[in-house]
Amino acid sequence: MKYCSSCGSEVELKIPEGDNLPRYCCTSCDDIHYQNPKIVTGTLPIKEETILLCKRAIHPRHGLWTLPAGFLENGETIEQGAFRETLEETSTEVKMDHLYAIFNIPQISQIYMLFLAEVIAEDFGPTSESLEVRLFEEDSIPWEELAFPFVPLVLKHYLNDKKNNKFDLRIETIERPAKKPN
Amino acid sequence: MKYCSSCGSEVELKIPEGDNLPRYCCTSCDDIHYQNPKIVTGTLPIKEETILLCKRAIHPRHGLWTLPAGFLENGETIEQGAFRETLEETSTEVKMDHLYAIFNIPQISQIYMLFLAEVIAEDFGPTSESLEVRLFEEDSIPWEELAFPFVPLVLKHYLNDKKNNKFDLRIETIERPAKKPN
Repeated sequence: MKYCSSCGSEVELKIPEGDNLPRYCCTSCDDIHYQNPKIVTGTLPIKEETILLCKRAIHPRHGLWTLPAGFLENGETIEQGAFRETLEETSTEVKMDHLYAIFNIPQISQIYMLFLAEVIAEDFGPTSESLEVRLFEEDSIPWEELAFPFVPLVLKHYLNDKKNNKFDLRIETIERPAKKPN
Repeated sequence: MKYCSSCGSEVELKIPEGDNLPRYCCTSCDDIHYQNPKIVTGTLPIKEETILLCKRAIHPRHGLWTLPAGFLENGETIEQGAFRETLEETSTEVKMDHLYAIFNIPQISQIYMLFLAEVIAEDFGPTSESLEVRLFEEDSIPWEELAFPFVPLVLKHYLNDKKNNKFDLRIETIERPAKKPN
């Protein structure tokens, strides 16, 4: 951030009076531009003994498999966002179940919120965001081609929970390596 | 938002190619400035049969009672943010318990995430954000002087759950009246 989005003047990074963290502060109109974590919301879509995965048609991680998830939009509930993202990435309208996993990823200031969902129609398929959308049996999950660290984590939790038929919410923190200095 | 925070040129609200929602797009450098919901994280701090509330020293709702909560900061987990906000608003370090309530407030694009917590020290008290910090017995809760809609909701849930000694996470949506048109 270099310029004030309200007045177009330059901003400087400083700690505002009464605050304790540096913020982007306008040098002209005194606006303070806060930056906060974003929510990524999505689903773990299940059909009987299989799990629906999407092969990414977009960067980053183009061509790798993921669960349908994306940034929560203004005006949405987390459940609405998860349903929408699933529709956008798999082309099917799932039946939403309960919130199943929350992952903090502090290094990139993202909070993932994933719901269990049931695939109730056969109309899933490729979309502008997914090259391929497929149901995987447990023994065919492409573990070596998963797009993001949260994907194997939630899949392993689910497969484990299935043994006990108990799918409690879990909250975990995913540590990612810090970006390399330039 | 009127100006691009990357280059200082004017932005226009339009739907970018491949998107389906209007975004602030720079007319010069083509940056797209997404705006997403914010997380408010906090606690319901309990000490035996009492609940710790804070009288707001800041606007909005100055002088009304609330639970300690505030915007999650970049680089934090939701639990770390809830602990920090509680410390900032009550001056005491609580013992964190489980995630107890999530409130979607889509009209203002905020997601509240509240943890149960235990007050384990006597050092709570006023801070720069709270005029007064006090433990309330159930029959002395200032129901008519609570600051935000989430406060009575979570207090009622807690008092009800206490009867069954079962404090499951709940997710609810709080509808707020739309802003009056100018």
